[in-house]
Amino acid sequence: MNLTVAPSLSRIHSLHCARCHTPYSPFELQSVSACCQQPLVADYDLHYPPTPAEAIDQADSSMWRYGALLPLLAEANKVTLGEGMTPLLQLPRLGSKYGFSALTLKDEGQNPTGSFKARGLSMAISKAKELGAQGCIIPTAGNAGVAMAAYCARGGLSATVVMPRHTPEAFKEECYWYGAQVELVDGLINDCAARVRQLNAGGELLDISTLKEPYRLEGKKTMGYEIAEQLGWQLPDVLLYPAGGGTGLIGIWKAFQEMKAMGWLAPETALPRMVAVQAENCRPLYDTYFGYQANSLNYNGRPTLANGLAVPRPLGEPLMLDVLRESQGTVVSISEEGMLEGMRELGQQEGLFVAPEGAAVWMAARQLLSTGWLRADERILLLNTGSGQKYMSNVAGRAWA
Amino acid sequence: MNLTVAPSLSRIHSLHCARCHTPYSPFELQSVSACCQQPLVADYDLHYPPTPAEAIDQADSSMWRYGALLPLLAEANKVTLGEGMTPLLQLPRLGSKYGFSALTLKDEGQNPTGSFKARGLSMAISKAKELGAQGCIIPTAGNAGVAMAAYCARGGLSATVVMPRHTPEAFKEECYWYGAQVELVDGLINDCAARVRQLNAGGELLDISTLKEPYRLEGKKTMGYEIAEQLGWQLPDVLLYPAGGGTGLIGIWKAFQEMKAMGWLAPETALPRMVAVQAENCRPLYDTYFGYQANSLNYNGRPTLANGLAVPRPLGEPLMLDVLRESQGTVVSISEEGMLEGMRELGQQEGLFVAPEGAAVWMAARQLLSTGWLRADERILLLNTGSGQKYMSNVAGRAWA
Ligand SMILES: Cc1ncc(COP(=O)(O)O)c(C=O)c1O
Ligand SMILES: Cc1ncc(COP(=O)(O)O)c(C=O)c1O
Ligand SMILES: [Zn+2]
Ligand SMILES: [Zn+2]
Repeated sequence: MNLTVAPSLSRIHSLHCARCHTPYSPFELQSVSACCQQPLVADYDLHYPPTPAEAIDQADSSMWRYGALLPLLAEANKVTLGEGMTPLLQLPRLGSKYGFSALTLKDEGQNPTGSFKARGLSMAISKAKELGAQGCIIPTAGNAGVAMAAYCARGGLSATVVMPRHTPEAFKEECYWYGAQVELVDGLINDCAARVRQLNAGGELLDISTLKEPYRLEGKKTMGYEIAEQLGWQLPDVLLYPAGGGTGLIGIWKAFQEMKAMGWLAPETALPRMVAVQAENCRPLYDTYFGYQANSLNYNGRPTLANGLAVPRPLGEPLMLDVLRESQGTVVSISEEGMLEGMRELGQQEGLFVAPEGAAVWMAARQLLSTGWLRADERILLLNTGSGQKYMSNVAGRAWA
Repeated sequence: MNLTVAPSLSRIHSLHCARCHTPYSPFELQSVSACCQQPLVADYDLHYPPTPAEAIDQADSSMWRYGALLPLLAEANKVTLGEGMTPLLQLPRLGSKYGFSALTLKDEGQNPTGSFKARGLSMAISKAKELGAQGCIIPTAGNAGVAMAAYCARGGLSATVVMPRHTPEAFKEECYWYGAQVELVDGLINDCAARVRQLNAGGELLDISTLKEPYRLEGKKTMGYEIAEQLGWQLPDVLLYPAGGGTGLIGIWKAFQEMKAMGWLAPETALPRMVAVQAENCRPLYDTYFGYQANSLNYNGRPTLANGLAVPRPLGEPLMLDVLRESQGTVVSISEEGMLEGMRELGQQEGLFVAPEGAAVWMAARQLLSTGWLRADERILLLNTGSGQKYMSNVAGRAWA
């Protein structure tokens, strides 16, 4: 450990249990809270807050420009591939086709390893390195595993990636190129999680499962900071996000709260209504939100083109429900055919080859427009969480309806 | 045409024939020069030059931040997906393995469509739109065609992409998702060029072939501006680049000349020695440079994993030779096995899944170190021009030697 190598600008001061708020130390390796077995959430010193100009490193065009609001203590431990600061793109052609007047997409497919997972894993692996871990293990629907493999290689840590056997080959192959161990499991990500517990029974490896360590969330929240900065400290009216494990949704919302607390948002900026988008084949949050089940503890999902949404029993469900309630948001679910249609439209109209997860988000906007839940003149922000590249083998030949 | 829609900051004032310097208008559609059938090169007003602070739009984290030195006249014609401002990454682990003390890589794989071709095509399609073209056609080894398809979709122009039949499926499929017409040809890119002439005999489509229109070069040159800006207006000692058609090499060198003329470079900054990296299977420039042939007009190449280097008879050969001579550079050629070894090393040591072209560049640095052409303590910059994603089907199963 070399926590004292460089003076750090991080303002982190503690972690707390998401359920009962018991504090935990941010200076040692942590998993879920000992008190409630719930996610740990990072807290920063937001008194005498810095202004954006003081806090943001303008010369850094990666997510690390927000280092003051991130948990890394020493620069020397940063494990980065240049993730973040992805573009916000207007979608004028799709917008005018459907009558939207302010339709924007943030393209996370331009991140290292082709998805927004790069943010969470850059952060988590940097902290793993800072706190002395030698190797990491992860159950994954695909993208998070690829990102972990890449950042572990970059940081000199060993990587073990456990993913469903039906995941497209490109996800597995890319892990091999990073020198990772890959374990295949019959089932979905929750079955992979069980296998992780088996493989890591002795606890030699750091478990990087969604919300089972506190720092992927901190990486993901940088999307929220970027959105605000890129919009001149304004926010959209509605933000649509493909929710699987939920770190993206929860992280962006956390960033909005932090910015509000620091006074960074333009006066009278309302926080967006947050829309969680799921796949019809696996929509635990949808079923809970609309009262078809009390919670998703026993939900069974099926595989979907949108691997990342095949998360049947997300640990973060209570936190996601909080975000939906606090923001007056909603949940939408999209069919497999709908995702393909969305991929075609984004490709042909806007030159974007997106992951099925991103296509689902666009189809959700169309659906919410048609039901009147959102208005055509609202400022709509779509999060495309990944590039379509690694999904190619599953969608080949489907470019035309 | 809407050249007068918005006041433009572009300082372009003319084009000139690369061979005889006859001037041409930058305000109408152009192909090669009528005088010599040679590439046209854009000239800017560099008298009373702006400082970087005046010229660069700091709020824009794409290549368009250098708009003053780019040829687009009206903002409304910009066709962008957020290309450029890719990260410069230190390679500490690979560096220490081989003794390099300052080894850096610019990762162009993080561009839209997964390669540096996004820069040239964003620029060329923006100008095509500005000058009234309705559709474009391109002969391509793969990446340029994918990029053209994406930017044409984004700009509302039709796209016809002509590529070798043996190109990995992912390149073709991605074009389909952008709604492009794809034509397959038995042979290499020069055979595709012949097919383009056939298909476009009537001249209805704008021919976007490398150096047959003046603006892809202008897009590519932004790599040179970024390198200088990201290094604080210093330059590396040696820059290694995978050269096929040559726009990258020529464009980066052009940027260095423009910055020198404007006084943007730090005092006493020497320009880098430029190294062109080719594939053993197709190394026309290598053979000409080392005197095995007078020029590449009759060179025959074979396919290579590095599609982008399978350009047997580059129109830009004379310009590339100028760059090598002026910069005291050299040419290196790399075997297919070497590229795979480079991909493995960059993946396992640094978490980068690069295109074979990028891997070749790294292997060239190793080779030049072992021959003594470069010193381990020089500041070395590797250009990785693309992500490995679309090459996956050709390299699957080869992650372990
Ligand atoms: C492309 C993509 N989008 C969305 C998700 C869901 O992410 P989150 O865990 O933030 O809900 C994933 C997760 O694997 C993903 O890979
Ligand atoms: C990945 C990649 N690298 C390098 C090249 C060569 O490019 P240039 O025409 O700039 O020499 C290409 C061209 O297709 C390419 O796709
Ligand atoms: Zn608790
Ligand atoms: Zn001439």
